[in-house]
Amino acid sequence: MDLTTMGQSAVAAKYSLQVLSTEEKNRALMTAAAKLVEKQEDILKANEVDIKNGEKNGMHQGLLDRLRLNEVRIEAMAEGLRQIVDIPDCIGEVMERFERPNGMQIEKKRVPLGVIGIIYESRPNVTADAFGLCFKTGNAVILKGGSDAIHSNIAIVKVLKEALAECGITENAIQLIEDTDRAVTAAFMKMNEYVDVLIPRGGAGLIQSVVENSTIPVIETGTGNCHVYVDEAADMDMAVNIIFNAKTQRIGVCNACESLVVHRKIAEDFLPKLKEALSAKNVELRGDEGVRAVLSDCIPATEDDFGKEYLDYILSMKTVDSVEEAIAHINKYNTKHSECIVTEDAEAAEQFLNQVDAACVYWNVSTRFTDGFEFGFGAEIGISTQKLHARGPMGLKELTSYKYAITGNGQVRG
Amino acid sequence: MDLTTMGQSAVAAKYSLQVLSTEEKNRALMTAAAKLVEKQEDILKANEVDIKNGEKNGMHQGLLDRLRLNEVRIEAMAEGLRQIVDIPDCIGEVMERFERPNGMQIEKKRVPLGVIGIIYESRPNVTADAFGLCFKTGNAVILKGGSDAIHSNIAIVKVLKEALAECGITENAIQLIEDTDRAVTAAFMKMNEYVDVLIPRGGAGLIQSVVENSTIPVIETGTGNCHVYVDEAADMDMAVNIIFNAKTQRIGVCNACESLVVHRKIAEDFLPKLKEALSAKNVELRGDEGVRAVLSDCIPATEDDFGKEYLDYILSMKTVDSVEEAIAHINKYNTKHSECIVTEDAEAAEQFLNQVDAACVYWNVSTRFTDGFEFGFGAEIGISTQKLHARGPMGLKELTSYKYAITGNGQVRG
Repeated sequence: MDLTTMGQSAVAAKYSLQVLSTEEKNRALMTAAAKLVEKQEDILKANEVDIKNGEKNGMHQGLLDRLRLNEVRIEAMAEGLRQIVDIPDCIGEVMERFERPNGMQIEKKRVPLGVIGIIYESRPNVTADAFGLCFKTGNAVILKGGSDAIHSNIAIVKVLKEALAECGITENAIQLIEDTDRAVTAAFMKMNEYVDVLIPRGGAGLIQSVVENSTIPVIETGTGNCHVYVDEAADMDMAVNIIFNAKTQRIGVCNACESLVVHRKIAEDFLPKLKEALSAKNVELRGDEGVRAVLSDCIPATEDDFGKEYLDYILSMKTVDSVEEAIAHINKYNTKHSECIVTEDAEAAEQFLNQVDAACVYWNVSTRFTDGFEFGFGAEIGISTQKLHARGPMGLKELTSYKYAITGNGQVRG
Repeated sequence: MDLTTMGQSAVAAKYSLQVLSTEEKNRALMTAAAKLVEKQEDILKANEVDIKNGEKNGMHQGLLDRLRLNEVRIEAMAEGLRQIVDIPDCIGEVMERFERPNGMQIEKKRVPLGVIGIIYESRPNVTADAFGLCFKTGNAVILKGGSDAIHSNIAIVKVLKEALAECGITENAIQLIEDTDRAVTAAFMKMNEYVDVLIPRGGAGLIQSVVENSTIPVIETGTGNCHVYVDEAADMDMAVNIIFNAKTQRIGVCNACESLVVHRKIAEDFLPKLKEALSAKNVELRGDEGVRAVLSDCIPATEDDFGKEYLDYILSMKTVDSVEEAIAHINKYNTKHSECIVTEDAEAAEQFLNQVDAACVYWNVSTRFTDGFEFGFGAEIGISTQKLHARGPMGLKELTSYKYAITGNGQVRG
């Protein structure tokens, strides 16, 4: 199917999706979950083709692992859809209501975004997940997944469409771009006439490419060069504990700590304790001069290190003379994602929370909590690092817009 | 000054602006208002240069009029700044506050967007207005005005900077790109590193160009192909009154009515009444076959007419057999701006309000009310026709973002 036809089908679908009741949407999600499990043989067979192709093309083990499906993972996909059922439906909610002096009543009501485009890499679980989140919020979705997962995605979308049809809902609520040609992806990013929002999900390269090439409004999700600042008034054990968690609990995620900023006054006491703790996970330390004055065998940190999202067992370290210097350093190098101060000094904490420019600013809490589930949103479509529309963890509400409905009795403007 | 230096200066300014108190901001706005009046000779002299150049280049009368400043217009610019003082400061407002089971406290707080870029045409009043709105919300602004107004803009920005300096506030809160080369504008639209949001203010051509070329997130403001649908259950006098107002009260604005949709059952009674009313303003009528069956001398409407924002004394007209057909027609041709149903049938109205895809949907009220001042926002930066971030009239709150501040006592993720 060509892109224009897909766009038109999505627009037609969005009008019928926006009027579905919560019950209709939940029934379809439960049916889809059941059908994923029921038809898992078909999905696994298709996935096997992708895996074989990946192996043939010398795909890395890590990527192959993300691509691979099995019974447990399909059950997890189904469970993801069931969990979305439990999240309250926010569509139709009256967000504000006010009356004007001329008697007209204005209601600000929550509505779906309309048609959402999602461009992602070779993780077939995103296919079901993105569908569930968009569908619950009354949006039609057009998916463009990584070409390495194309057979898996086709099989999953087929099952989801069958579930929709069984519930009497338009199958065009979900569409997959099957053409893996890059030119098609480029054209997709310029379909402003049909697509309201484009959300890239994946690594920095994918996101950068979408930001640069899309004319459709984009929600940039993100890379995280997250810092922990250990203030002179920090509880040192707490600081070690938070950094150990933020750095090592899971290294490949955007809310992991990549850089330490430490007040010079406590560097001598603190850094050896931290080094000892991190040595249990063989974390490589790279420090500025101030750090190396304390840890003499530490690798020197370059300018490049401070701007880097390692996603690895590496930590860059910088010494500062004040909370102001810490804030300036972080605002210079961070990616506006998640930043933490460890201190017992409420004034320093307030200054840090107010002046650091990031979606999430933490006081005595690990940066690893920047997550839709951890925030209690019940779901997550990604972490926005831009300031327009949504910032930080995005749940269902972040997939909605609003409209103003104005009622009166013949008011005209004078 | 080169663009990179301007970007860096704006970023430095944003950090100092976000911590200003409401009183500091209001004092600067009052000082700026006073200074505009005090230094009006300088501004008028500069404006005279632009006007003379415009006349020499054969600029249209309408554009020359928008470009021209005088004492009254400078006073209006000053009064605009004084009015912004009276609007409550929303920065720092706690939008939500919740606690998680692990004891961490999450606050969602309103913050400035950061650095806002505004690209506009040769209307020097926008210079002061855009500064006032961005400044009150703690944002730094970089302006790129039309080249025809460059001398006026330089003079206005000079005065505003003087006012800021007098109040001890960074002059880089406002910066003007003085280089009128198109290549500079193109480069400005790709300054993602420094600029958080780009807002084009002007005609459809300008907006389209920004949407197509910017890599910075854009708020699309808008063109309006607005419809009034006269239902079979309409109060006909009210319908005539609303259309007369929406079509003729001011023709060059985005919330003017451009197209009429009328139920076939009442076309015969209604259209002659409407024609008579609109003849007082010499409105040209262009109708489909159903309309011409009633108004035999009506000009035929083409497909092209239905998609057109005339901004003129012209009205396209379409007959339909049902509210569903009216909704489908409007959703096909509208620009998602403002749409109205005139009816006494509450069920038809509800269907229309829910299913028409537009920022503002009206029941028995003129579309001319889509306006920040008419909505009671106290200000307006534009009417957004996109669904991301802001939709409909944008006031001060629409120039803000939010951040999550999380506090705890050492929580780590398990």
